Amino acid sequence: MPYELHYWPSIQGRGEFARLALEAAGADYVDVARGCEEDGQGIPAMTHFMESGGVRHPPFAPPFLVDGKTIVGQSAAILLYLGPRLGLVGKSETARLWTHQIQLTIADVVAEAHDSHHPVGTGLYYEDQKKEALRRAKAFRTARIKKFLAWFETVLERNPRGGAHLVGGRLSYADLSLFQLVEGLLYAFPKAARRALNNAPRVMDLHDGVAKHRRVAAYLASERRIPFNEDGIFRRYPELDA
Amino acid sequence: MPYELHYWPSIQGRGEFARLALEAAGADYVDVARGCEEDGQGIPAMTHFMESGGVRHPPFAPPFLVDGKTIVGQSAAILLYLGPRLGLVGKSETARLWTHQIQLTIADVVAEAHDSHHPVGTGLYYEDQKKEALRRAKAFRTARIKKFLAWFETVLERNPRGGAHLVGGRLSYADLSLFQLVEGLLYAFPKAARRALNNAPRVMDLHDGVAKHRRVAAYLASERRIPFNEDGIFRRYPELDA
Repeated sequence: MPYELHYWPSIQGRGEFARLALEAAGADYVDVARGCEEDGQGIPAMTHFMESGGVRHPPFAPPFLVDGKTIVGQSAAILLYLGPRLGLVGKSETARLWTHQIQLTIADVVAEAHDSHHPVGTGLYYEDQKKEALRRAKAFRTARIKKFLAWFETVLERNPRGGAHLVGGRLSYADLSLFQLVEGLLYAFPKAARRALNNAPRVMDLHDGVAKHRRVAAYLASERRIPFNEDGIFRRYPELDA
Repeated sequence: MPYELHYWPSIQGRGEFARLALEAAGADYVDVARGCEEDGQGIPAMTHFMESGGVRHPPFAPPFLVDGKTIVGQSAAILLYLGPRLGLVGKSETARLWTHQIQLTIADVVAEAHDSHHPVGTGLYYEDQKKEALRRAKAFRTARIKKFLAWFETVLERNPRGGAHLVGGRLSYADLSLFQLVEGLLYAFPKAARRALNNAPRVMDLHDGVAKHRRVAAYLASERRIPFNEDGIFRRYPELDA
């Protein structure tokens, strides 16, 4: 049975981290909410898991993965589950924990990137919190992006198997997620991200390497890859970049 | 060898989630940064792991756990590691994933609670972002606390082993973390949290049950439990509550 990925159909968002793993591994999966309601898919098929009283493990929010009887929410937990099944994480407990720790740190940056345009709350439009966003984005740009990228650079630098991957000598889901983070930062903050990446050459190389991965490249060129847009996590509001 | 917990010595913060697990299990551990520098402890012993070039898996930030050669950062990853070792998680993969997913959702609330007083950035004082904090805290109070607590209530309600625990029929690290979240919300937002908890009676009962757990109760009454204060994640600024 194919994996079912459930996520909002018109944005990359947090669902993209699971999508990239499924695509890079060539896994059989259905992007449920993007399907037709007539086929039992679409948004109702997704919200069913969040709203129906019969679901024992209801996810708090999309994305979530359904694999037979298993339902897993939270992007990092989805990758914890998929990693070993898709061959996207090392076999040792040490490798798995380290990969997960890196993923959780990527999730932290993603949350901060989101809050750079929504510092007051997700319930309000950007236009209603623009003044606050200008201050928050400045702090994110001038301090946080640099600090996080420096940490990923250090992780690559200290990998005894070489700096091509974050953990060990092979592609892991953390590499895919770091690629996506860099893509997102370059989209939302082209000036600030480019500047910070100048000081993180290994991160940039990893990004470029992932983009050339055969299956990832095919995915990125396909219609399955939703373009970045101003409803997602990474939004290009020129006034927030500098 | 005792576990080494590394965290800022004067706040509960994110370190408290690991501390509660260690305490509830009666584990042998050292709270390193609270020790004396003369004994090789204190803050320098902590920052060593973040700054020394010889550390292969440097944590991005405290808290982190050192167990022999293993270093684990990110509170949720620390609990993923400690859970099976301390008997604070079920044995099946399903139970472990579900417990972790709940923990990650608790971590999301904790991040939002932090941002309620620091919506612009961690690099600035509260006083320098008070205006933004008033708006953010309002959104957190009126929408988010309620939404998150309702989800935890549903999780308890749907536990086939009864509503005394989030997962299965025994205490897990997620129960301890939910206790801590409720403690924090009641400290920081006494009015709003009390109101929301009126609609989440199972969450409140779980909180009260954990507080009575023999080892947890002894810990809470000890000097090892740092009181809440206005340097931590949960801060009582009366102007942010209503």
